[in-house]
Amino acid sequence: MALVESLAVAGTSRILLAVLDGLGGLPRENRTELELAATPNLDRLAAKSSLGLLVPIEPGITPGSGPAHLALFGYDPVEHQIGRGVLEALGIGLEIKHGDLCARANFATLGEDGKVKDRRAGRIPTEESTKLCELLQQKAGRIEDVEVIVRPGKEHRFVVVFRGEGLGEGLADSDPQHDGLVPLEVSSVQPGADKSARVANAFIARCAEVLKKEPRANWVLLRGLACRPALQSFAERYKLKPACVAAYPMYRGLARLVGMDILKTGETWSDEVATVRQNVQKHDLIFAHFKETDKAGEDGDFDAKVELLERFDEDILPKLLGLKFDVVCVTGDHSTPATLKAHSWHPVPVLVWSRHVRPHACSMAFGEQACGRGSLGTLYSRQLMGLLLANGLRLKKFGA
Amino acid sequence: MALVESLAVAGTSRILLAVLDGLGGLPRENRTELELAATPNLDRLAAKSSLGLLVPIEPGITPGSGPAHLALFGYDPVEHQIGRGVLEALGIGLEIKHGDLCARANFATLGEDGKVKDRRAGRIPTEESTKLCELLQQKAGRIEDVEVIVRPGKEHRFVVVFRGEGLGEGLADSDPQHDGLVPLEVSSVQPGADKSARVANAFIARCAEVLKKEPRANWVLLRGLACRPALQSFAERYKLKPACVAAYPMYRGLARLVGMDILKTGETWSDEVATVRQNVQKHDLIFAHFKETDKAGEDGDFDAKVELLERFDEDILPKLLGLKFDVVCVTGDHSTPATLKAHSWHPVPVLVWSRHVRPHACSMAFGEQACGRGSLGTLYSRQLMGLLLANGLRLKKFGA
Repeated sequence: MALVESLAVAGTSRILLAVLDGLGGLPRENRTELELAATPNLDRLAAKSSLGLLVPIEPGITPGSGPAHLALFGYDPVEHQIGRGVLEALGIGLEIKHGDLCARANFATLGEDGKVKDRRAGRIPTEESTKLCELLQQKAGRIEDVEVIVRPGKEHRFVVVFRGEGLGEGLADSDPQHDGLVPLEVSSVQPGADKSARVANAFIARCAEVLKKEPRANWVLLRGLACRPALQSFAERYKLKPACVAAYPMYRGLARLVGMDILKTGETWSDEVATVRQNVQKHDLIFAHFKETDKAGEDGDFDAKVELLERFDEDILPKLLGLKFDVVCVTGDHSTPATLKAHSWHPVPVLVWSRHVRPHACSMAFGEQACGRGSLGTLYSRQLMGLLLANGLRLKKFGA
Repeated sequence: MALVESLAVAGTSRILLAVLDGLGGLPRENRTELELAATPNLDRLAAKSSLGLLVPIEPGITPGSGPAHLALFGYDPVEHQIGRGVLEALGIGLEIKHGDLCARANFATLGEDGKVKDRRAGRIPTEESTKLCELLQQKAGRIEDVEVIVRPGKEHRFVVVFRGEGLGEGLADSDPQHDGLVPLEVSSVQPGADKSARVANAFIARCAEVLKKEPRANWVLLRGLACRPALQSFAERYKLKPACVAAYPMYRGLARLVGMDILKTGETWSDEVATVRQNVQKHDLIFAHFKETDKAGEDGDFDAKVELLERFDEDILPKLLGLKFDVVCVTGDHSTPATLKAHSWHPVPVLVWSRHVRPHACSMAFGEQACGRGSLGTLYSRQLMGLLLANGLRLKKFGA
């Protein structure tokens, strides 16, 4: 990675990184979702592109969205791990600053014996927990010199962000993980996290005071306390001006972690394409994220995933190609085979088009088999950015 | 590797790792041994499996059996090197304990001038050296507080194991490598090996005393002194219960180094299959080793290797598949092309079957060419275990 960074130079070429979430699949009757889908536009593009397979992390490793995207952005996902609290905050669209300490939180029911009776406070409805979060924001919005941001999630879940000086990470959860146990104090397991632990515990105590008359949600449990990882900015690393177009907050959040400009967009793929079109001249690289394919995979809905891929091919891809990017990459962050109803470890099809690729020149449809025989071979997701920059003629020669 | 280990969870799936020693080959008239062999069962399995090529160590590196197997087991073979003495001891079936110091030994002839006249004592017959080893075991079986185990090998070769407290490694050989030179003292080249050197030299002196009237074998030379490497156990690393079925002692020894259960078996492939069958329900992973393919390669006997592969396909594979493993891997530890009469650096065909693979769906026979186009791509042997665990649904997701 340091090599790519050291060779990157500014340029005028424009790069599109289109990510179909969970793109890779597994066959049902010999064909994967992508292979079964009728995708004439992708197939035509594939025939003049270089194809390959991306291993998101390592062979056999199934990634979450966080590490899978960091890898696509060219960051080592094992070296730069994103804590659960941070991911949760990104997922609900919170803007996280450097030094912020984030936690996943639950409303819980504490019994009179001081033990946790229900770690999920009877799964109280979102409207109820939203009100409680507003109350906590008012009454527990500051601990010492630390600003506390409380935001509701779904049902009993919410997110807490502690913003202030000297909040190191390395904290054990207060959640005892099982009902019937006494809630723990947040404790520091790394040097430099003492203030964090003290503030978190003071926050819990303040919440207990505020919530003491609540029948169910009379306690809060904190988990996955973590700081925003310190990542070199994408712009600085690659000498380009990047932007993110994503309907889902989590992916905007991940892009924000690497310093991309976040473009305001709507909720549909068409909204996203319109946003790309409006901004295409203002940025060197646009990361466009399409979520629904992953959801269909997670739902185990093979046919829905096929349909979504066909819709991408028919409605979305031609519009993107009409914007005359110099480099076009279509890939996924990981595989989400409908047969597994989950993210998986299988390598992800990738297509790279520019005027400077060795075309695939194969009549096979764009899919896992074709990509497995592609001229890019099987490479790691974290190696993709180097290829895209090269195709945009944005990397100097190494050595003389 | 630490990543796989951190994500491994216990499960109920069962994994077969079938290793045909020296499986990979080179073509004679355009086809390798494996490509020429008629292997309808392997071919059928390959069509519903993922194929690839395994690089045992690094491109161009020809491995011995020790590092090649450690890599298949998922251990970094460069980081964890197995001393020659240890390998020799494993090869004759000696059980080595943690802290044991092992040496390869030769009977030699020392001239009256104190110089080595023959480093191999005229290659004395095995029966003769066996008797001498028994004598040394009696007369030199203890040095200071150290137990000494002496076991014959072939002809002039034998193995010595020193068992006791504080026997560090880092010792230079006593073998001067050429006839006509004075035998060396064993000397310590690392701190912590002083006692080892003292004991080894005392052993040599004791042997000289015992053997002084022998016409040929009147001296012993020690080489490759090394301790058993400290390897994390396979069971702990991967959260499963592994067993080894191998007719040859060396491979049982290598499996024992990583803490596999060693199953008693006979000398033939059929014996091995019977042992697998009897134990299939008691273990999560069975490593089954088939030696003869490597021997045929080393003998330069292309046709014999072809025949052995056909026999594996006809007699052995169907029985193994009948045992309903959830994950089946067929591969080799390294290539042993008959045309080279030796181990080689060429990547090794690998086939991974489970319900969760992307099938190869190609009509080509299982072989080097087909595997070179397989969806697994070319990966390192040490990455295989992660894939097998993934296919057995035994790895948690990395990150969220």
